[in-house]
Amino acid sequence: NSQTVFPTKPKTDERVYNAAINIGSSYKERGSNCQHQMAARIFQIMEEKQSNLCLSADVESSVELLELAETLGSAVCAIKTHVDTLADFSYSVVQRLVEISKRLNFVIFEDRKFADTGNTVKAQYSGGMFKISEWADLTNAHTISGPGVVQGLKACVRDKPEKACLLIAGMSPKGNLINQAYTDATVQMAEENSDYVIGFICTKKVSNNPSHIHFTPGVKLQVGGDSLGQQYLTPDEVIGKRGVDVIIVGRGIVESENRVKTANAYRAAGWQAYLKRLQKK
Amino acid sequence: NSQTVFPTKPKTDERVYNAAINIGSSYKERGSNCQHQMAARIFQIMEEKQSNLCLSADVESSVELLELAETLGSAVCAIKTHVDTLADFSYSVVQRLVEISKRLNFVIFEDRKFADTGNTVKAQYSGGMFKISEWADLTNAHTISGPGVVQGLKACVRDKPEKACLLIAGMSPKGNLINQAYTDATVQMAEENSDYVIGFICTKKVSNNPSHIHFTPGVKLQVGGDSLGQQYLTPDEVIGKRGVDVIIVGRGIVESENRVKTANAYRAAGWQAYLKRLQKK
Repeated sequence: NSQTVFPTKPKTDERVYNAAINIGSSYKERGSNCQHQMAARIFQIMEEKQSNLCLSADVESSVELLELAETLGSAVCAIKTHVDTLADFSYSVVQRLVEISKRLNFVIFEDRKFADTGNTVKAQYSGGMFKISEWADLTNAHTISGPGVVQGLKACVRDKPEKACLLIAGMSPKGNLINQAYTDATVQMAEENSDYVIGFICTKKVSNNPSHIHFTPGVKLQVGGDSLGQQYLTPDEVIGKRGVDVIIVGRGIVESENRVKTANAYRAAGWQAYLKRLQKK
Repeated sequence: NSQTVFPTKPKTDERVYNAAINIGSSYKERGSNCQHQMAARIFQIMEEKQSNLCLSADVESSVELLELAETLGSAVCAIKTHVDTLADFSYSVVQRLVEISKRLNFVIFEDRKFADTGNTVKAQYSGGMFKISEWADLTNAHTISGPGVVQGLKACVRDKPEKACLLIAGMSPKGNLINQAYTDATVQMAEENSDYVIGFICTKKVSNNPSHIHFTPGVKLQVGGDSLGQQYLTPDEVIGKRGVDVIIVGRGIVESENRVKTANAYRAAGWQAYLKRLQKK
């Protein structure tokens, strides 16, 4: 019962708590039961590589991005990009990244945070210099502009059923304006678009659908924040207590002295938190 | 009194109505009283060119973008770009656009809808291929992620006090998740960052501060919508009744047979609506 599961967390708010105790089964079981091939692939990668770590490759150099992918790719289930921050972007960079992702078995997640009308996001996702829909396995969108954003994105990948999207259902920065009604509406949009939306960016588990994959950014082994409102959480907190599935780690790894060693420490911490959670069931 | 101002609109909702009757003075007067140099410049351009029309240059070709700027630049106060939808972008395109904007006296508004953490939007605004903060007079941001987004953007333009930002306080697509509390928090963020935020993207007037400029997208001379949730409003409705300042017109002009003629029709309609509003005071 609840006392047994979280005896030391009496102040955990009821909703987080209820979500966490209904986390569902192993990644393996959830993967074998879900309909979307990208969700199934991510669950499978996590299980095979024993990694629920997504690297946020926040760098300005394409060479550095590819180097991160080569050296850390085997430790992660996904690499998150901001292709619009690469000073020396060229399409060959993402082609090379795709090659690495296939070889080292991770998915490419372009963190575009689409947030415009359906018609505009359609052009932004498939067009421009970046042609994100061509190479990114996964992208994400805010739901602030309503369901049209998902319709617009989906329209770009009608012939690519493996492409998928996460909806932003929760954010960590101080003073963000996401409340429960917003999160609920976002989960609803995900349910209505299960042929494309496979999960969420969130700070805690928001959906009881075991096919949904929960990704949480702003994770560090040490608690703290930055000067621009970011607030960090630990792997234990997000996987073990908040019931999410994938930890997104950026500066914790990229700014460390030994990236490979640090990435493996995060991979181990995330995986241990997951195993502990499974044992509690 | 209110009956005199809008005798034919008994159903107008109280809030829109109250906003509209406090619209304030002419663009000229508001411009001469506002602190931010970009706000002052926009008010001045509107007055000089008798245009409250912002062209949304939603095209995929840089050649076409520059052609639109050359042919329609004299009819507008601003040109709104989505630089990430230009298939053949190069930095020289925006340099050329800046040259045209100076010659034909309009501002360049990159509709980026920044919507990430402060640290990430900082990299997206100043870096990457686009270096938006270098050439865009104006950009915009969602406030969903909290005040850190404005802090992050501002950090890029500390030495460029002429650069400015609009916050997205209202959207038109069906089922969008912006409610009054969200709008109020957004207006508050604008007030707290008046050295950088000069107004709003909105569907009606949201602030009684006469320095704030209200921009409304989704304007067409004919009412209607698109298949991805967009819902159009007329210039009369948005300027005259909803109390906004600038109409943003995209497809209404870009998809018309004679763009110059149509742009001038929108310019005239927007300006007439503004003059009528002034007379009602």
